[in-house]
Amino acid sequence: MRKQKHAQSIREAVERLSDHESVRVLCNRQQEGEPMPSAKELYEIIDLCRSLIFPGYFGHSRIDIDTLPYHIGVNTEKLFKLLISQILAGMCSGNPQQDETIEARREKAKDLAAEFVASLPELRRVLATDVIAAFNGDPAAESYSEVIFCYPAIRAISNYRIAHRLMELGVPLIPRIISEMAHSETGIDIHPAATIGEYFTIDHGTGVVIGATAILGNNVKLYQGVTLGAKSFPLDENGNPIKGIARHPIIGDNVIIYSNATILGRITIGEGAVIGGNIWITDSVAPGEMVTQSKAKQKKGE
Amino acid sequence: MRKQKHAQSIREAVERLSDHESVRVLCNRQQEGEPMPSAKELYEIIDLCRSLIFPGYFGHSRIDIDTLPYHIGVNTEKLFKLLISQILAGMCSGNPQQDETIEARREKAKDLAAEFVASLPELRRVLATDVIAAFNGDPAAESYSEVIFCYPAIRAISNYRIAHRLMELGVPLIPRIISEMAHSETGIDIHPAATIGEYFTIDHGTGVVIGATAILGNNVKLYQGVTLGAKSFPLDENGNPIKGIARHPIIGDNVIIYSNATILGRITIGEGAVIGGNIWITDSVAPGEMVTQSKAKQKKGE
Amino acid sequence: MRKQKHAQSIREAVERLSDHESVRVLCNRQQEGEPMPSAKELYEIIDLCRSLIFPGYFGHSRIDIDTLPYHIGVNTEKLFKLLISQILAGMCSGNPQQDETIEARREKAKDLAAEFVASLPELRRVLATDVIAAFNGDPAAESYSEVIFCYPAIRAISNYRIAHRLMELGVPLIPRIISEMAHSETGIDIHPAATIGEYFTIDHGTGVVIGATAILGNNVKLYQGVTLGAKSFPLDENGNPIKGIARHPIIGDNVIIYSNATILGRITIGEGAVIGGNIWITDSVAPGEMVTQSKAKQKKGE
Amino acid sequence: MRKQKHAQSIREAVERLSDHESVRVLCNRQQEGEPMPSAKELYEIIDLCRSLIFPGYFGHSRIDIDTLPYHIGVNTEKLFKLLISQILAGMCSGNPQQDETIEARREKAKDLAAEFVASLPELRRVLATDVIAAFNGDPAAESYSEVIFCYPAIRAISNYRIAHRLMELGVPLIPRIISEMAHSETGIDIHPAATIGEYFTIDHGTGVVIGATAILGNNVKLYQGVTLGAKSFPLDENGNPIKGIARHPIIGDNVIIYSNATILGRITIGEGAVIGGNIWITDSVAPGEMVTQSKAKQKKGE
Amino acid sequence: MRKQKHAQSIREAVERLSDHESVRVLCNRQQEGEPMPSAKELYEIIDLCRSLIFPGYFGHSRIDIDTLPYHIGVNTEKLFKLLISQILAGMCSGNPQQDETIEARREKAKDLAAEFVASLPELRRVLATDVIAAFNGDPAAESYSEVIFCYPAIRAISNYRIAHRLMELGVPLIPRIISEMAHSETGIDIHPAATIGEYFTIDHGTGVVIGATAILGNNVKLYQGVTLGAKSFPLDENGNPIKGIARHPIIGDNVIIYSNATILGRITIGEGAVIGGNIWITDSVAPGEMVTQSKAKQKKGE
Amino acid sequence: MRKQKHAQSIREAVERLSDHESVRVLCNRQQEGEPMPSAKELYEIIDLCRSLIFPGYFGHSRIDIDTLPYHIGVNTEKLFKLLISQILAGMCSGNPQQDETIEARREKAKDLAAEFVASLPELRRVLATDVIAAFNGDPAAESYSEVIFCYPAIRAISNYRIAHRLMELGVPLIPRIISEMAHSETGIDIHPAATIGEYFTIDHGTGVVIGATAILGNNVKLYQGVTLGAKSFPLDENGNPIKGIARHPIIGDNVIIYSNATILGRITIGEGAVIGGNIWITDSVAPGEMVTQSKAKQKKGE
Repeated sequence: MRKQKHAQSIREAVERLSDHESVRVLCNRQQEGEPMPSAKELYEIIDLCRSLIFPGYFGHSRIDIDTLPYHIGVNTEKLFKLLISQILAGMCSGNPQQDETIEARREKAKDLAAEFVASLPELRRVLATDVIAAFNGDPAAESYSEVIFCYPAIRAISNYRIAHRLMELGVPLIPRIISEMAHSETGIDIHPAATIGEYFTIDHGTGVVIGATAILGNNVKLYQGVTLGAKSFPLDENGNPIKGIARHPIIGDNVIIYSNATILGRITIGEGAVIGGNIWITDSVAPGEMVTQSKAKQKKGE
Repeated sequence: MRKQKHAQSIREAVERLSDHESVRVLCNRQQEGEPMPSAKELYEIIDLCRSLIFPGYFGHSRIDIDTLPYHIGVNTEKLFKLLISQILAGMCSGNPQQDETIEARREKAKDLAAEFVASLPELRRVLATDVIAAFNGDPAAESYSEVIFCYPAIRAISNYRIAHRLMELGVPLIPRIISEMAHSETGIDIHPAATIGEYFTIDHGTGVVIGATAILGNNVKLYQGVTLGAKSFPLDENGNPIKGIARHPIIGDNVIIYSNATILGRITIGEGAVIGGNIWITDSVAPGEMVTQSKAKQKKGE
Repeated sequence: MRKQKHAQSIREAVERLSDHESVRVLCNRQQEGEPMPSAKELYEIIDLCRSLIFPGYFGHSRIDIDTLPYHIGVNTEKLFKLLISQILAGMCSGNPQQDETIEARREKAKDLAAEFVASLPELRRVLATDVIAAFNGDPAAESYSEVIFCYPAIRAISNYRIAHRLMELGVPLIPRIISEMAHSETGIDIHPAATIGEYFTIDHGTGVVIGATAILGNNVKLYQGVTLGAKSFPLDENGNPIKGIARHPIIGDNVIIYSNATILGRITIGEGAVIGGNIWITDSVAPGEMVTQSKAKQKKGE
Repeated sequence: MRKQKHAQSIREAVERLSDHESVRVLCNRQQEGEPMPSAKELYEIIDLCRSLIFPGYFGHSRIDIDTLPYHIGVNTEKLFKLLISQILAGMCSGNPQQDETIEARREKAKDLAAEFVASLPELRRVLATDVIAAFNGDPAAESYSEVIFCYPAIRAISNYRIAHRLMELGVPLIPRIISEMAHSETGIDIHPAATIGEYFTIDHGTGVVIGATAILGNNVKLYQGVTLGAKSFPLDENGNPIKGIARHPIIGDNVIIYSNATILGRITIGEGAVIGGNIWITDSVAPGEMVTQSKAKQKKGE
Repeated sequence: MRKQKHAQSIREAVERLSDHESVRVLCNRQQEGEPMPSAKELYEIIDLCRSLIFPGYFGHSRIDIDTLPYHIGVNTEKLFKLLISQILAGMCSGNPQQDETIEARREKAKDLAAEFVASLPELRRVLATDVIAAFNGDPAAESYSEVIFCYPAIRAISNYRIAHRLMELGVPLIPRIISEMAHSETGIDIHPAATIGEYFTIDHGTGVVIGATAILGNNVKLYQGVTLGAKSFPLDENGNPIKGIARHPIIGDNVIIYSNATILGRITIGEGAVIGGNIWITDSVAPGEMVTQSKAKQKKGE
Repeated sequence: MRKQKHAQSIREAVERLSDHESVRVLCNRQQEGEPMPSAKELYEIIDLCRSLIFPGYFGHSRIDIDTLPYHIGVNTEKLFKLLISQILAGMCSGNPQQDETIEARREKAKDLAAEFVASLPELRRVLATDVIAAFNGDPAAESYSEVIFCYPAIRAISNYRIAHRLMELGVPLIPRIISEMAHSETGIDIHPAATIGEYFTIDHGTGVVIGATAILGNNVKLYQGVTLGAKSFPLDENGNPIKGIARHPIIGDNVIIYSNATILGRITIGEGAVIGGNIWITDSVAPGEMVTQSKAKQKKGE
């Protein structure tokens, strides 16, 4: 009898969960032939990019200079094919354009994937500057190997630079999933639409947030918990935030921002400025300025 | 000879690690027939819940409205069976009641699993409000799809609502493991015992902490690094914290709390209040009030 | 024709990515017979350590006191072999010493692996104190099982104590990878070179940073977001930070540091001191002192 | 230097193996979008058919009469989709028709897959007769369960009946792969084009061969090593065998053929005949006749 | 519209396949808590037996004499547990006894599994004689290693001896599945109920059949294609074969039977007899006799 | 108490199975650093060979003529590395030469692996003749694709040609394992030491045996169940067969041998001869001769 009751609970739940009205809003219905965004494939895409950019550190093979081109060839082709599928998935799920056929979108996805692949050498060049910045900036770093293998900043910045390139190419949804993958792994949340210069580094990194319209110069260093966020959102007539307005800070070259500092709004932190930890900044800071928290009061323990 | 020495090191370590006295405290000994809490099964439980609540986003199949009920049926039954095993594991490991037979506990686990399954439609209804809140509250959000696929807040809140329901049903241990899974993935730490209203959202999220006795109204929005914590713990006569006392804040409807704010103790943040970032609050805040940090001092860089 | 263009993009990218000059800096070239650091093997090493230290909680078998020594024996041997390979990988990648043969380094790796294995009983003893501290310090904790299964602090501290032991033995690179694995899972970033006493606990934990030269006494408790960091780095004549200088705080016995506090530089927090949340400390604090943030200003919402 | 020589061996082999002329004959080049025949998918197709035909014996779930339709629904849909892909692969690899677009072929594949799915209930009915025949014919059989779980004949006949249905529908290549899968597992080689009645059984089975144009009535029983083959092939003007000519035996109802008998050519074995073991038959046998081998001579061992 | 038609085909097939009447005969319905026979677990059982009997040949670890007992301990316990589950599955599926509770059957399964484990040393002793016989009997054999690693006879005889021991213990269904696993892998079909002496070997082996009531002495050698079968089955009043009657040959010590010979019925092949290839024997053969085929006729090719 | 008894059974079995004396004969003890023969790696080796010889049929990638050399390069290097490990394993297990260091043997293994890789183009050329022979010889064959994908003969002959090449290079043990892999999959048992010409084919194939010293010319065709075996073995003074004597038949060019024929001893079947099915031949057959079985007797069924 108990078993009957359980069977009935299941049957009723199935009916209610299958109910068309209930499914309508949250259900993701795709047309036949449309690939779905796949975390598994996107992880594979990131792993392939990393093995192409940092040969010998990631992926399963030891590097042999004689056979390196074969491996790079196979991985590049594999990356190209996976990208086509995920770019197309992004087009279908993230921003479906009803007036294009699936075939037309697939051709476009191939063009974009080929463009992305063509950017890999430049991505390698820029990420090399980030590795150097991380090594130089950390007295505890003992080798480039340690930086590339272990530093969460390198992982987060790699994902950001990959995602940013895809966003420049106009790919919907996928860049955001890629940057959230790094967010989950490192606690560093860089919106793929942000603009970030070379020799960028983040120490420790957990809790860092960089908003979609933020612009960072070259040689910027952040510590854990730094927020480059928005102060408030202008609302439209329906009370919803207006999308697409520049609302995050501009950070000049050679700026250092210490842990847990919060910098909000479309303000400018001038070149070479230093922002101390645990503070809250909503006004621009002049080049070369140093800003720190007011003194904490100390009292005897009770 | 060296090999002999290594063999001896291993043999000695094995003996000391197998020593009954050493094992006694930390060892988890279960009776035959008792399942163990399994991270793998719990991940599967969460994935099944997510595929049932958000059809077509998670899980491996594309949605076809004709065959949807078959899939929901199979997944619901699978969820039911996995839940029985893990609820029973929670009963045995988390809170062993020596006076009940394993069979009695298994029957109880089935009842609870059936009750949980019956709650799924309601969980879908409430999580839909959270998706809407995240979309409306973020100018960078481009579609519900993006919110459901990528936003860590949705993942953390899904786990919380699932874990909270299990806790309401009296399941030990398992709810906490489920909320720590989301903590690990998102950096958002919501105790499953907390009470949280509808249309709840968290932006970025890393470092958020919501304590076990916290109560949040409807339409609350938190930013990264917000703590809703306890100020201090009354100790019992042995100097240990007394368990079960209400010690976390009550947050009214429509409250916004900005990044890295710390709110401690059984205080009340009144309806519609706005709490600025990086501040430390231990006293109640009236409805509609806005609280911000005192000005940082700025000085020229040296 | 389009297909031709895509094929050309791929071919050109492969050539540029295989270019010797471009590969030279970032490529990790290893000699034949040298193992590579492997995240998969290191996860397995951590899982084996955890199953040996906390029997019955991790790993796949239920504990049966009759057959426990067999399991401990097999797992210890497996750990020993995996350690040899990863210690050797660390020696080769992290700090290659050109004047030693691979065979000599392998022999050394075996000695170190055997020494590590011999430390396991002591690691179990110390980690038991951490479990007790976590249980006693959290009114929400309901059993040791809950603490061992779920608490991110236990995971982070386990990885730290394992990595620290390997660092004491002089193993390069591997300790850092192990501590970054815990950092990724828990948001807690403890440098393996830090020195930490017994009965150590961290509540919630996300965002905690403990620097390489920090020294913590017994019975210290930290909350989420606490930084024990460096204030500034003395630079050498080339403008690079001088490595190896003591630059992080010394924390006395029985100190509590609340959430998001930032403590920087080689200062001393005296025994029994209490540091409030969200504050920034760069000067030593006397034993027993209590330090808190200055009052936030509150204003009516507009 | 030795390493150089090895590298050269590899390089030369790669060049010769990539040589267009060498690749031309044996290489399987497919157009984009064309699936490949996949042993893995075909095994899955057979497993799905078996779990649909014999519920509860194969597949991972225990049968619960309440939820059986959900499982059958999910598995049927999965079978339908896999079939579309493999039928299309068969069309492209086995018998490419250059004048049809890939889309047209895909539509046709869907029609055929739907027709196959519609045949499943009839396949269940006929296979049930084979199970009964195997059980009744073997004194060692203890239950239908044993027959369905263990008997290689059931596996081989299942694959045959599935492959034969696909061949009737005009699917190229795939039926043959399916029957060779059973051949490999059981040593029973039944060409999918053969025609076989109900209540068919094979004892032991290894070495049985049934040719493409053979016709078997109802209630036929074969033992291991029986060949129903062709005697000779009429050749065309180029000396190649003419394809498609009826060249294998016709076996009447209720015939038994004992082990290692060889029956060749388009002859008829009449209803109820019994063919003894180890003999070679190239002329028709009248209904009810019994044919056996001539006596072996026996001599004392030397 | 086409899509509608396909959807309807699927829906109708699902309905017919779920129909209670259609399911009734062939469906395997088990009670809750009853394990199912699992090919995967049975393969694991065989692999464990082989790794325990032939240490260092099978399984993943290299043998180290210092740690061998740990591995044997873990594998023996694992085998014990898997056996309990599969023996119980055999009891439930193969021969359900309605009057025993599942718990009673589980206790019985434990007893039988323990008895089987206790037989392993004897199984090792006997299989060693089979290895020696295979090595001595084959001029192409180069080492015991080659025999143990490669010879299908060793695999088939191992499975037979394991299955036979389980059958002696009264386990239903499972022994037959185990012997059919070897049949599929080697083409050698030995019924687990057959009785076979020591120093048994089979050369090549494909097509060998040994019936359920056959009895073989010591030092017997068979070649490929040999059948030790039944001549005819006495029928009961319903025309079905009477089960359990001795109907297969008795083969004396030191007998050799060459390829494709067929020996049928409860006859005796006397000690030291030699049976030539491709012959059909239905009468007893005296000790020491040699039996060969009558001469083939040869004619010029046409 | 019962549990105690089971524990004791296990403990005693472990002790007896670990007993040094019992382990001594059958245990495979290898030195550190010596790889073990691995079925898994050998399957991978065969798959790599097949994907290199028949591009586009096996392996996971569709062939694109632009990127084919990358894939062939990666697969060739992978094959080279796996071969080194398995050739070395063969040297250590199959035929340990105590007077060579492991390093010397490893260098030799590399030389042999490189030589094997250099033979791949020739293997492709010869296997192409076998594919053509199978297609031409079977009226049921519809395309080269069908032959390559499905025909067990192609699989068995591929393994034979690979294993034979390794045997020519002097690799112990491994060739035999490779040919037994094909034996298990196809029921065709070709000893790797046999010598076989081009355009070789086997129809159906189950039960075919070709002995170690057999020599087959070009364009030979065998049917299922054919044995090319040894008649008797000359024994040495200890009664063991003398190894290495030519003892299997020589088959001329263009010979056809029908199903289940048994040809034994160092006899010669002359060019163009045809051997009928189910017969036993121990004397040479002249070129062009046709040999068939004597007539079976037929009698009315009783």
